[in-house]
Amino acid sequence: MRIVIAIIFICFHLVSFAQVNRIEPLNWWVGMNNPNVQLLIYGDNISKKTVEIDYTGVELINQHKVENPNYLFLDLKILPTAKAGNISLLFKEQGKKTFVKKYELKSRDESKRALQGVNASDFVYLIMPDRFANGDPSNDRVKGMADQSLNRDSMYYRHGGDLQGIINNLDYLQELGVTALWLNPVLTNDQPLTSYHGYANTESYHVDPRFGGNEAYRKLIDACHKRGIKMIQDLVHNHFGTEHYTIKDMPMKDWVHQWNTFTKTNYREQVHMDPYAAKSDKDIMLNGWFDRHMPDMNQDNPYVKNYITQSHIWWIEEMGIDGFRLDTYAYNDLAFMSEWGKAIDAEYPKMTYFGETWVHGIPNQAYFTKSNRINQGIDTKLQGVTDFQAYWAINEALNGKFGWMDGVVRLYNTFASDFMYEDPYQNVVFLDNHDLSRYLSVVGEDFNKYKSGIAWLLTTRGIPQLYYGTEILMKNFASPDGLVREDFPGGWSKDKANKFNRAGRSEKENEAFDYVKTLANYRKNNPVLQDGKMLQYIPEDGIYVYFRYDDHKRIMIVMNSKQEAINLQTKRFQEGIAGRQQAINIVTGAQINSLEELAIPAVSTQVFELKK
Amino acid sequence: MRIVIAIIFICFHLVSFAQVNRIEPLNWWVGMNNPNVQLLIYGDNISKKTVEIDYTGVELINQHKVENPNYLFLDLKILPTAKAGNISLLFKEQGKKTFVKKYELKSRDESKRALQGVNASDFVYLIMPDRFANGDPSNDRVKGMADQSLNRDSMYYRHGGDLQGIINNLDYLQELGVTALWLNPVLTNDQPLTSYHGYANTESYHVDPRFGGNEAYRKLIDACHKRGIKMIQDLVHNHFGTEHYTIKDMPMKDWVHQWNTFTKTNYREQVHMDPYAAKSDKDIMLNGWFDRHMPDMNQDNPYVKNYITQSHIWWIEEMGIDGFRLDTYAYNDLAFMSEWGKAIDAEYPKMTYFGETWVHGIPNQAYFTKSNRINQGIDTKLQGVTDFQAYWAINEALNGKFGWMDGVVRLYNTFASDFMYEDPYQNVVFLDNHDLSRYLSVVGEDFNKYKSGIAWLLTTRGIPQLYYGTEILMKNFASPDGLVREDFPGGWSKDKANKFNRAGRSEKENEAFDYVKTLANYRKNNPVLQDGKMLQYIPEDGIYVYFRYDDHKRIMIVMNSKQEAINLQTKRFQEGIAGRQQAINIVTGAQINSLEELAIPAVSTQVFELKK
Repeated sequence: MRIVIAIIFICFHLVSFAQVNRIEPLNWWVGMNNPNVQLLIYGDNISKKTVEIDYTGVELINQHKVENPNYLFLDLKILPTAKAGNISLLFKEQGKKTFVKKYELKSRDESKRALQGVNASDFVYLIMPDRFANGDPSNDRVKGMADQSLNRDSMYYRHGGDLQGIINNLDYLQELGVTALWLNPVLTNDQPLTSYHGYANTESYHVDPRFGGNEAYRKLIDACHKRGIKMIQDLVHNHFGTEHYTIKDMPMKDWVHQWNTFTKTNYREQVHMDPYAAKSDKDIMLNGWFDRHMPDMNQDNPYVKNYITQSHIWWIEEMGIDGFRLDTYAYNDLAFMSEWGKAIDAEYPKMTYFGETWVHGIPNQAYFTKSNRINQGIDTKLQGVTDFQAYWAINEALNGKFGWMDGVVRLYNTFASDFMYEDPYQNVVFLDNHDLSRYLSVVGEDFNKYKSGIAWLLTTRGIPQLYYGTEILMKNFASPDGLVREDFPGGWSKDKANKFNRAGRSEKENEAFDYVKTLANYRKNNPVLQDGKMLQYIPEDGIYVYFRYDDHKRIMIVMNSKQEAINLQTKRFQEGIAGRQQAINIVTGAQINSLEELAIPAVSTQVFELKK
Repeated sequence: MRIVIAIIFICFHLVSFAQVNRIEPLNWWVGMNNPNVQLLIYGDNISKKTVEIDYTGVELINQHKVENPNYLFLDLKILPTAKAGNISLLFKEQGKKTFVKKYELKSRDESKRALQGVNASDFVYLIMPDRFANGDPSNDRVKGMADQSLNRDSMYYRHGGDLQGIINNLDYLQELGVTALWLNPVLTNDQPLTSYHGYANTESYHVDPRFGGNEAYRKLIDACHKRGIKMIQDLVHNHFGTEHYTIKDMPMKDWVHQWNTFTKTNYREQVHMDPYAAKSDKDIMLNGWFDRHMPDMNQDNPYVKNYITQSHIWWIEEMGIDGFRLDTYAYNDLAFMSEWGKAIDAEYPKMTYFGETWVHGIPNQAYFTKSNRINQGIDTKLQGVTDFQAYWAINEALNGKFGWMDGVVRLYNTFASDFMYEDPYQNVVFLDNHDLSRYLSVVGEDFNKYKSGIAWLLTTRGIPQLYYGTEILMKNFASPDGLVREDFPGGWSKDKANKFNRAGRSEKENEAFDYVKTLANYRKNNPVLQDGKMLQYIPEDGIYVYFRYDDHKRIMIVMNSKQEAINLQTKRFQEGIAGRQQAINIVTGAQINSLEELAIPAVSTQVFELKK
């Protein structure tokens, strides 16, 4: 018996090992709304084979040979009658069976998607997994991987942070009031250099083993979901890493955009909408490579489109992802992004996704959003964007000098332009992220400005997003040294201080943490700051006043950008105050017994819950 | 016989003088598309009367008494059967005839509208009539008018310029290549102070006698039309002057927007589109007064709407106006502006009008234009705007430092945003106007920058507009002393130099004049620079390259914002060059025998007509 098994194993192993290295998606499900799935079969000269299947409810519609004989693409149709189980893929050559591969069809698990859909009720916390906390030092270096660096002194090398590190600190995040995590991409980046950031994936179905692999990801997400915390996966449609197997051994020449000499994108989103754009500029923008190690995917290629889209659906279905952040949105082919959006929406109507639109000007940003009226050609389906216009506006509000169009007026103007969006509440507002100088440094380490911006972040419209460590006053500039990606102190066992704990933080750091926590938890518990309506007044003399209100509550927010305290006469704001007589300052807890005049400290944003 | 006539005259005069001071419109026409016209009858206690008419094809539909007994409004319907002639308006009181007033119905004169419609084929020259040339010193001061100032040393007093002064200098304008005149408002401004600028009209049917009255206006327009020059009338819908008779003795309280205390507009166009705007901010913006002497018309009031709209139609029909410039556009009620536009379009389909949109940002500017996709509520019908966004962009291009979003990139971005407009070619581009610092001063009197901007003005998309004197290097800043409204030297007989003549200008002034003239006349004679398509390239290293092309010609324009001359490699611009091998520099006339590389002087915009 033992011998027989061994022989079978050897035979099977020899044949299959030689022939099929990968089948992707790793598995699929019965009962999807879209019955079609395209399997990518990768193996030496696999295109010499033909495949047959015999499985109730599953039809093999087509098998495609492509330029590279190491690929075979199978179009399966999974009918409603199909049941979960293993499909036998029978590989034949010249009419003869050569070997069989199993392909699993799973049952769907609806419970995973109980929280799905990130929206203005959320408070998103952005983590760079390599830099947050090292929960499992055993995976810091993984044998066989290209990048064996491990050097916490350099921003360009790996530091050892992982998903277990995040799991270990969920109490901290929950205390802060976080309701959703956005991790920089967690897929394997088996690149030789700067593999830590995640934006050059070399696998499409595997979390980086240095982060703990798929199992750690599943564990993290399950742990989050138990706490009511959502998971946002960071996706890169535009490019893979050069070490992705489909790049090293491409299915066909036009799997990526090829250039005679290396051609970088010009990074100008304007070509999308410019009625006068030169074709060559457009070509370079859309088809040039984001960087040398980031080949530009050909999103016109139907195999590429299937491969990318299916992998994303796979992550939702397999892990219960709640939202997506779409990297380098403007570099994509919008026709594909629209198709992609339709595919996601058709399968997961509650799912949401927002695009990174590091673009300049309201029209250009709005152009990429769903159902807008200015992009006549394409409805991208994109519900929200990373609101860079609001980001620049808050910086100007905090650091600029008040003027006709300057200082806090920039904020007012930015939100006055919300008529350009189908749903501005789906835009993600932020003070910093992994690419930008840290917020505290941007405001010149002025603690009053810091608090003013935080109060704005958590009371304005949209989905607020915080970058890890901003709540404990981490600082530094994005250039030239990338120090904005420093480790969270306490995430490594040997760290001098553990700032995940109150005792490890300085008094001022605790003040900052408590400030964020108070506002974030107030926001979490008060829908008025989530989907409540907004009302804003033309700023006067450096003061910007806005309200959030619904049928139950009214919140008055006063941003004083001046260096002196003021007594604000409120007569002008009657529409917002709507007859209320009193208020509570939701940060200090102070009771205000008359609203006629409000004392507003210098350089501060005060948040008042109005009372009858 | 003589006695009889005298008696009749006296009787008629006494009765009518006492009762009817005005009937407006002054006359009307048979054969208008809209058969309705509302006459305003103004006279002491005129509302005690009722009116009867008996005129074939004319029906008196209604007569309205209003709050003020000195007004009567008559709704006439002029059927297609009506012939030109004088309608007798029979005024009765208590059933008895009291007197008769004649009201003239004229025949229409189609020939007046041969040129109608200002568009990208035009080159508009803006003149402030009081400051250009004094062709008739006899009207410098007019007896009985409130402002008896005449002081050319002050920018706030009258200088004596008039329409005859413009007539006298049409040769000059025609030589320059001008195809359309825009005059600051010519209606009577019988205001006690700063009556010269024209934006506080006290009459709606009379050109200021100090400009020569209606007859001089007619003479000027006829003289212009003979030369193929169009006339753009500057209209102010938003306000009249405080000394307008309908303001001094208002038909009803809500003829203008009334406030308990004087309330100025807040000058914030954002309230139009801001989804979060406070009602009080909106109210102040739209209904607050532009200034103390400029009461805000109530454009919800149907009598106001008729009065304003009819007066504008009257000027078109009476004088043969070719286009309108609409002052302070954003201060108007857009519902009215839409109605107004429909009324104008229905009567004059070739007529065009552009709004002064001194607003900030592309979305806000585009919001006011016709058929745009971002103003969901109202189609304003406004074909074009004064393109302030392009104005700021050219200033930045000439004075800013090249950067990712700065310097010439601002120009590129501005035109890349043209997808926001229904027809960006109807936007009016300019380097200065009566409210702005003069262009030469804005560029620090740098003659190279001056020429660079002029070349841009006359080659970019849209309707170029020059402010009087820019072509002879007039300079100065808008604030604090208003010196941008200085007199054109030579417009007054005693002026030391006459810069209308070549001999009166310095060598440099002639160089400037010739530069404008060459480009303007090239543009005038080459449709490619009028409605030709545009193609623009992403600026690199301070160089902005764009093309204008049609089936016949290709023009390549290179703006070098750098302080050094360059040899521009043209390989990147093949789409624009489209196989052409040679070129002519249209300013210098130089022949260029190879296009592979183009020598571009420092700080200059070169215009090349490409040749096979």
